[in-house]
Amino acid sequence: MFFASDNSGPAHPTVMQALADVNTGYMPSYGADLVMQRVKARLRDIFEAPNAEIRLVATGTAANALALATMTQPFETVFCSPVAHIHEDECNAPEFYMGGAKLTLVGDGDRIAPDALRRAIKAEGNRGVHGPQRGPLSITTVTERGTVYSVAEIETLCGIAAQYGLPVHLDGARFANAMEALGCTPAEMTWKAGVDAVSFGGTKNGCMGVEAVIFFDPDKAWEFELRRKRGGHLFSKHRYLSAQMEAYLADDLWRDLAQTANARAAYLEKGLHSIGAGFLWPREANMIFATLPRRAHQRLHDAGAMYHLWDGELDGPQDDALGCRLVCDWSITEAQIDRFIEIAKG
Amino acid sequence: MFFASDNSGPAHPTVMQALADVNTGYMPSYGADLVMQRVKARLRDIFEAPNAEIRLVATGTAANALALATMTQPFETVFCSPVAHIHEDECNAPEFYMGGAKLTLVGDGDRIAPDALRRAIKAEGNRGVHGPQRGPLSITTVTERGTVYSVAEIETLCGIAAQYGLPVHLDGARFANAMEALGCTPAEMTWKAGVDAVSFGGTKNGCMGVEAVIFFDPDKAWEFELRRKRGGHLFSKHRYLSAQMEAYLADDLWRDLAQTANARAAYLEKGLHSIGAGFLWPREANMIFATLPRRAHQRLHDAGAMYHLWDGELDGPQDDALGCRLVCDWSITEAQIDRFIEIAKG
Amino acid sequence: MFFASDNSGPAHPTVMQALADVNTGYMPSYGADLVMQRVKARLRDIFEAPNAEIRLVATGTAANALALATMTQPFETVFCSPVAHIHEDECNAPEFYMGGAKLTLVGDGDRIAPDALRRAIKAEGNRGVHGPQRGPLSITTVTERGTVYSVAEIETLCGIAAQYGLPVHLDGARFANAMEALGCTPAEMTWKAGVDAVSFGGTKNGCMGVEAVIFFDPDKAWEFELRRKRGGHLFSKHRYLSAQMEAYLADDLWRDLAQTANARAAYLEKGLHSIGAGFLWPREANMIFATLPRRAHQRLHDAGAMYHLWDGELDGPQDDALGCRLVCDWSITEAQIDRFIEIAKG
Amino acid sequence: MFFASDNSGPAHPTVMQALADVNTGYMPSYGADLVMQRVKARLRDIFEAPNAEIRLVATGTAANALALATMTQPFETVFCSPVAHIHEDECNAPEFYMGGAKLTLVGDGDRIAPDALRRAIKAEGNRGVHGPQRGPLSITTVTERGTVYSVAEIETLCGIAAQYGLPVHLDGARFANAMEALGCTPAEMTWKAGVDAVSFGGTKNGCMGVEAVIFFDPDKAWEFELRRKRGGHLFSKHRYLSAQMEAYLADDLWRDLAQTANARAAYLEKGLHSIGAGFLWPREANMIFATLPRRAHQRLHDAGAMYHLWDGELDGPQDDALGCRLVCDWSITEAQIDRFIEIAKG
Repeated sequence: MFFASDNSGPAHPTVMQALADVNTGYMPSYGADLVMQRVKARLRDIFEAPNAEIRLVATGTAANALALATMTQPFETVFCSPVAHIHEDECNAPEFYMGGAKLTLVGDGDRIAPDALRRAIKAEGNRGVHGPQRGPLSITTVTERGTVYSVAEIETLCGIAAQYGLPVHLDGARFANAMEALGCTPAEMTWKAGVDAVSFGGTKNGCMGVEAVIFFDPDKAWEFELRRKRGGHLFSKHRYLSAQMEAYLADDLWRDLAQTANARAAYLEKGLHSIGAGFLWPREANMIFATLPRRAHQRLHDAGAMYHLWDGELDGPQDDALGCRLVCDWSITEAQIDRFIEIAKG
Repeated sequence: MFFASDNSGPAHPTVMQALADVNTGYMPSYGADLVMQRVKARLRDIFEAPNAEIRLVATGTAANALALATMTQPFETVFCSPVAHIHEDECNAPEFYMGGAKLTLVGDGDRIAPDALRRAIKAEGNRGVHGPQRGPLSITTVTERGTVYSVAEIETLCGIAAQYGLPVHLDGARFANAMEALGCTPAEMTWKAGVDAVSFGGTKNGCMGVEAVIFFDPDKAWEFELRRKRGGHLFSKHRYLSAQMEAYLADDLWRDLAQTANARAAYLEKGLHSIGAGFLWPREANMIFATLPRRAHQRLHDAGAMYHLWDGELDGPQDDALGCRLVCDWSITEAQIDRFIEIAKG
Repeated sequence: MFFASDNSGPAHPTVMQALADVNTGYMPSYGADLVMQRVKARLRDIFEAPNAEIRLVATGTAANALALATMTQPFETVFCSPVAHIHEDECNAPEFYMGGAKLTLVGDGDRIAPDALRRAIKAEGNRGVHGPQRGPLSITTVTERGTVYSVAEIETLCGIAAQYGLPVHLDGARFANAMEALGCTPAEMTWKAGVDAVSFGGTKNGCMGVEAVIFFDPDKAWEFELRRKRGGHLFSKHRYLSAQMEAYLADDLWRDLAQTANARAAYLEKGLHSIGAGFLWPREANMIFATLPRRAHQRLHDAGAMYHLWDGELDGPQDDALGCRLVCDWSITEAQIDRFIEIAKG
Repeated sequence: MFFASDNSGPAHPTVMQALADVNTGYMPSYGADLVMQRVKARLRDIFEAPNAEIRLVATGTAANALALATMTQPFETVFCSPVAHIHEDECNAPEFYMGGAKLTLVGDGDRIAPDALRRAIKAEGNRGVHGPQRGPLSITTVTERGTVYSVAEIETLCGIAAQYGLPVHLDGARFANAMEALGCTPAEMTWKAGVDAVSFGGTKNGCMGVEAVIFFDPDKAWEFELRRKRGGHLFSKHRYLSAQMEAYLADDLWRDLAQTANARAAYLEKGLHSIGAGFLWPREANMIFATLPRRAHQRLHDAGAMYHLWDGELDGPQDDALGCRLVCDWSITEAQIDRFIEIAKG
């Protein structure tokens, strides 16, 4: 009963097999492996973006921080949600990689509203040389609250950024889960809507540790490459990143795993509904923010269920509702979910 | 015939098997996996350092830059060789992670001589607030020229650093190869000689991508951990770093692989001697810097042999000697070496 | 009629005379001038802090950013008001000097409330290595909204910071104005209340360009000195900073000028009251945030009055109230204020 | 007898008078003062560069570090002399402002030789993404050894840089002294020779503390302006920087003072010759590197003469020659020099 994160489960066997398969003989280092050539071609095809440039790194924080550093001057500020991973969960990595640029927090959490973005951009622009200059917009989907921007919402936000000449970064640590939730194409979610660069996640969706950074403007690639090396994120034995990504993309594995994860979350949601749980945000992909009586959490905890409580602790009145975050990865089974619900029910 | 680098060969099957074995069920993320606990215990045992703190990263550049950043203030300078990997091959990663500290280049290449170190440290100390302040000494062994510091040499350099209160970092991307060349213990090469922190390499010696950073003063570990996260080098699915390192250390695999690599290099050296090659530096571990007539390089190139020319190009007078760097990893076979020599001989 | 800022007026003649007086013969450079020795002694005396260490810089941004950089690790976050000068008006200087640390914005503007500070500190502490670590509290008084923290308020905020082991920085660009408003001693406003470091402003209160950074813990001084040099803020002809500060402190000039500026603001406040102006925040020192009908602003503008409109523009309904910021420095005369009111009245 | 530096003397009375003159009434802050408009026009005229953009800062380190930061990416390296002020005397300020870029040291000191520059640029270009990328050339004239690049030498070096597409920065802390030594125009020494940006010093030549940074490509100015603000180097009461520079440029004061300083150094050189001193480098502007018997230094020291010994200490064999650096500013008198020589003679 592991619902703590989609990074606590195993990698998919197909990905592991690809690692074993690529482990023969000699290959050029540092990204010059032939596997990487195939990965590039495949991602360009998937994104309908024949000129896109793609680089691989091993962590989501590296993908985000390096992409933003390539898009942002140190005297600028990035517009993002106050609950964005880049703000709350990367220990100042974006600020570090951007050389001391700032993050401007827009809205109250969840998806950024167009009006809030407009106000924030306007507010940052009225101080001349004294205030930070306007930099990129960075959005996350699936958001850190489990919701998903519609394509129209992405288009609207990108349109606002474009009015001010600002580029757009998309943190897609759960890209596949968002896309499957929307039923759209990768291109519709990104460059067709106005996104300039994507952190395209693999780690949370069945890989061991690999993320692709995609620039639809290929001119950014060389600077990114230098920043990646300078950040210590260029792998000498790069074939092992390439092989993961190749296996992930082959035969729509990435989409299948995301569909499974989303479906499991829907199944869990149904179970939670059936026992009268509350919901802090709507379930739209593979994350659920639910409330249960504290005594239910206690029972689950005693039974070894793993997940994060949300804004509260086990100690307290047993009948009071207490929030929690439940994440389903591709590997969680319906049987585990059934057991979770059974214990929660009491 | 791959002699380009010890990072172009495959990972050892035992390491790959460990990845497959660890790929079951759920595990806490971000270094809290139980495998990491065993890795720490094992490294403490191997280094006879029960209080040492250990963290894993995936690249050597990350290990070096993060270790140095933890040891260096941004207004200081690190003393290192002009051919040090941290100076020549990390695209300013140390300067980036150290927040703009400097590297002071000592000597002319190969091992740092005690007198040169003394002069360099003295020279950096005579400007008060105007010049950079003295920071750590960083040495590499196996050096970037294939030679190995004796334990006595390490002791001498650390002693000089200690006279000035400066800590010492050891870039051990090829730690095992150096240690096997010397026939000493890990402790003798490091803390017993005065080394404070070690980048302990796995990637070049049979792993897929893992390096341990070892601090003999455990008080440094928390700052390192924060810097690792801030650098995007904390793996969510950390078990796959731990498992590599565990397999690498088990049953002396790390030592066996280094012995094999060194032995293959000795075998190659013998072959080169037999055909009248010259040597730019003595072969002491698994790297050889040799000279061959340009026509021999041409033949090898035509036959598909992979290695770096040293200070020159294929075009030119065919009888002239031209340098090259040849690196043996654990996987290179005597048959491949025989063929290399045969072709070189012509 | 210059109310744009207390940095648009002239320096006090006494300060200018001191510059002329010190301009004879040769003096040691870089802070080793004897004048600086006297400045240190005088500030230690004024602050009843015999061990305090003091350094001079020429701008308030330098004072703040260097002080914070000395107190903050790059993986930490500084707690400050969302309208703090360090956040809104220094073009990311603190982030730059701190090596990419973050600012956490507390409250809604004006003075930081104790509860808001407690909540903010708690919220930053629940993510382990993933979130930024808690760093210093930085408060500004006179605040950017013209209000002044009482000594008790400073004590309370410092007490909260102390509970979490966090140091406190005070941005005292208008230190003298705040102190005169409170009628307390420098010590009461600072170290006795729990403040660790102060940016003690001279520029806005009659100097040409000089700020003192005061560390009550003298151990911080050497690091500050190196950071000052590294920031390009160590003056070779340092005597001209020292002489300004010496003149500023002599015969209570600094207090007299602040009293004058505050009194002029009170006089202006009275005039504004008399013509029915509104007030956005209470006038407590030398800054006023008032509202006047747009037609009054238009008349003032046409007459050449200089000040900042607040959250609005001249164009619009002429009867509507529109905010403005009015700052009095020591040099503004009652006659100028009378004229301002007369024109505003219409 | 102050020969320690041209920053230990007083400012010229004309400059001080200008400060007094500008100290009346109110002026826009942050560089919007009218005086600055006149300074810009004057410098464009002097440099025959009607499109040049000019900004003022208060220290030479700020001028150099900010100019280089505007010209250099953090993954690049700046080519400079091993004795360059930016390398030896700025406590890592360039590295700090450039975000961790490197300095590549070219040659053995004094002026950079064309061949050495070519070799250095070539050597930095052979590592692809692994090594630092080639960045600007930075030259200093008057050099830190008192010598002066000829116009032809500057042209040659700039030509080499241009072959590789690298911009050129000139550290002109002693610009006027160099120009007067050459007898050329400002344009000949700079943009006509291929220089892109100049740190044009005032502080060492009669000002209190002001340097102009001149970009011949005006597109760089806005980025520089943001970096200046972010570095805390934008003065609120900017008129006092403008006034110094205006007085410095008016009526060729800057040239007169440099001629005087150079002439005094020539007079001192003659005196030193007359008593048999040796010379470490030829005297070409206002700095002399001479050798005298240690007993002469002892006598001078006892008589209160102030200057830096060069590579040695007073203690030692009294007959041995010991080097020293002697700098003449505009204010040193022939009488002081006569006395110096007399004492040195013994």
